[in-house]
Amino acid sequence: MSKMLNEVREQPSALDRTLRSELKKAEKLRAIFSKNRPKLIMLAARGTSDNAAQLGRYLLELTTGIPVSLSAPSLFTLYNAPVDFTSTLCVAISQSGESTDTNIVLERARAGGAITIGVTNEESSSMARLAEHVFLVRAGKEKSVAATKTYTGQVLCMYLLAYALGADLDVDDFRRIPEWVAQSLTLEPEITERAERYRFMDHAVVSGRGLNYANAFEFALKLMETCYVVAERFSSADFQHGPIAMVGQSFPMFLFTPGGVTWPGMRDMIAKLTTLKAETLLIRDQSNKEAAKLKAREIVLPMSLPELYTPIPYIIPAQLFAGRLAAVKGLNPDQPRTIQKVTQTL
Amino acid sequence: MSKMLNEVREQPSALDRTLRSELKKAEKLRAIFSKNRPKLIMLAARGTSDNAAQLGRYLLELTTGIPVSLSAPSLFTLYNAPVDFTSTLCVAISQSGESTDTNIVLERARAGGAITIGVTNEESSSMARLAEHVFLVRAGKEKSVAATKTYTGQVLCMYLLAYALGADLDVDDFRRIPEWVAQSLTLEPEITERAERYRFMDHAVVSGRGLNYANAFEFALKLMETCYVVAERFSSADFQHGPIAMVGQSFPMFLFTPGGVTWPGMRDMIAKLTTLKAETLLIRDQSNKEAAKLKAREIVLPMSLPELYTPIPYIIPAQLFAGRLAAVKGLNPDQPRTIQKVTQTL
Repeated sequence: MSKMLNEVREQPSALDRTLRSELKKAEKLRAIFSKNRPKLIMLAARGTSDNAAQLGRYLLELTTGIPVSLSAPSLFTLYNAPVDFTSTLCVAISQSGESTDTNIVLERARAGGAITIGVTNEESSSMARLAEHVFLVRAGKEKSVAATKTYTGQVLCMYLLAYALGADLDVDDFRRIPEWVAQSLTLEPEITERAERYRFMDHAVVSGRGLNYANAFEFALKLMETCYVVAERFSSADFQHGPIAMVGQSFPMFLFTPGGVTWPGMRDMIAKLTTLKAETLLIRDQSNKEAAKLKAREIVLPMSLPELYTPIPYIIPAQLFAGRLAAVKGLNPDQPRTIQKVTQTL
Repeated sequence: MSKMLNEVREQPSALDRTLRSELKKAEKLRAIFSKNRPKLIMLAARGTSDNAAQLGRYLLELTTGIPVSLSAPSLFTLYNAPVDFTSTLCVAISQSGESTDTNIVLERARAGGAITIGVTNEESSSMARLAEHVFLVRAGKEKSVAATKTYTGQVLCMYLLAYALGADLDVDDFRRIPEWVAQSLTLEPEITERAERYRFMDHAVVSGRGLNYANAFEFALKLMETCYVVAERFSSADFQHGPIAMVGQSFPMFLFTPGGVTWPGMRDMIAKLTTLKAETLLIRDQSNKEAAKLKAREIVLPMSLPELYTPIPYIIPAQLFAGRLAAVKGLNPDQPRTIQKVTQTL
């Protein structure tokens, strides 16, 4: 059994632990931000952490109304751009807290007058020292190179941050997340069986929209790094502005299809993909009853979820799928070729 | 001969025409912005136009210091998010000016108090009516579904916008762009010969950094829509945070490698790719003398360019390559399967 799959299974307890300790921090920050509300949120991260930032990009702007920007680290690390950080909240995210470029953005932002928050799994990391405030992901040491439990922990911190910024969110809903993840994990036997079909898949597209756009990035990244599948990621809207031309018979497509506002667009794209004879696999929960009527190939989470809370439970089957497919392909997801756990780039 | 390749060749005159008429507008806006400087720039676009926005994301933040955000249209079109547009400049980009979602972002921003600018090829479009100010790309009607001359026209407008926002740029440099493009076009016979090698390539990664990050997106999009190649796009930094695990012997990589601040990182990645026996093709100009020493497979633009002005000339060989490879593959780049010239999404 891979470390990756073990860590995937640790997520209910990791999320519960993180929530218990960091909710207090969120309450404290909520008081601070109620007096000093930032006008802009800039998120800085790389790799899986950048996918958590992508979720933050949507969730924070949606629930707080504060515009959000995903930072372009090279502007700081290479170009030395004199960016104005007035009234900005800079949030840096890194599993190890030792990502050089992410930390440079954080330092530059703090020196420029931004409020800074670090989100990391490592309490004694450089990031934890550099940031004014820290959300600590209490996932425990992550041993697999492929990040899983730290991703969902970082995403949880985005909900806590939204709450800290005054979003009208009910923390009792946060408390249901670990249980939703536990229920999603019961899909493992089904997914194990399903993975074999994809033994010789060498490319794919993952699509998600809105709050599940980040999950499309994260599922694709897991397929790239653990299964060596050339996996692209698009919103259903972007995909139809050109890339869909790639799709012919049997083209593999993975789709996050919650109910709610993103469903009609996804439904229309699925109809188009069906005409093109692409092979689709949907990930949804029980609340999307309209999707059920399609009788599509699908993985159905065994509960009903409000769309706002789909991002964390929905990545669970994707993580299980990547971990299981890696095994089917004879690969070790804990030690992908070429890469290490902590990547240093400028 | 495809319409696409004809339109690629029209770019020097299209850019010259756009510059002559729109520079006056930029001067006028420069006076306006000198009294009323926005605190945030939000860019909204889809498809190729979104790649021009990606260039704007880097160029504008770098040269003006104003933070830039790429908008998430679904927040407006689906989620109805109450985003704060105070002191914001919203710039929407669309070839046709009829992209529904892009126009909704523009309308919402204007209603919320943002200064709005539309960048479009169509003077009588909805976008031209909805925006307070308009930069008109004077590329002439674009007939090929694959956008080329409107992309470089939109990118030129990003330089004009940077100038309008007070960037310390010399408009005399802008005037050299059409000639640089004309020189790049002389590469067509060489690229035509080179394309044959890739007849059976079905996947690839395109990488660019900083100011050429957008070109990586645009080259990949052209490969997807005209050649049906599953083409991913990454910055050299992001690529090393996971996706590089996909790379084995003969994996095709296309790299934008100007001289300047992005080169050391690219050089290190090329060294790694060489160890992995990937097949690389570099696009550079004569100023990057260090790259010349690598004796790599490369396309060399026949002039020396300041890195700041590489984005427009560098996409020319990529457009030629995609158009020529489509022909080698027996495909018609003017009519890719499934897609139309104007895509409507919400």
